[in-house]
Amino acid sequence: MPNYRAELRIHLRSGVLDPAGEAVQSSLGHLGFAVDRVEVGKLLTVDLSASSPAEAEEALRRMAKELLVNPVLEDYDLEVRAR
Amino acid sequence: MPNYRAELRIHLRSGVLDPAGEAVQSSLGHLGFAVDRVEVGKLLTVDLSASSPAEAEEALRRMAKELLVNPVLEDYDLEVRAR
Repeated sequence: MPNYRAELRIHLRSGVLDPAGEAVQSSLGHLGFAVDRVEVGKLLTVDLSASSPAEAEEALRRMAKELLVNPVLEDYDLEVRAR
Repeated sequence: MPNYRAELRIHLRSGVLDPAGEAVQSSLGHLGFAVDRVEVGKLLTVDLSASSPAEAEEALRRMAKELLVNPVLEDYDLEVRAR
């Protein structure tokens, strides 16, 4: 089966507090970098085999639903490419 | 000044142990998802004002160097766009 690399970019949903992002923004401010906002998200890279890109994407969406993403707090987008 | 949104995608350097990735891979296996590798990285989204995209990118590279990225363990790529 062909090999794919999927990137799952996980963001906090808008309105969800992001203390890690606020801490980074504050630290940047202390170093003299004025920025308007920082968000700390997760970037999961998953290598897998599947019979097609569509099958790889479908598998990733199930993994996201069952384990990788907390739908109450997080949202995600997904990119699958051959490797 | 125009507003920009920068995305800093932080990966572990190759050869650096990734226990978080291994834990996710193992949990996926227990759920019946066989994947070859999982890497857990960080996705920082930074909103800032700058006079040009090049200036925004330069500022982000300095932030990466001074605070956001640990060059011993991590590598990153950067994308800046208008917002």
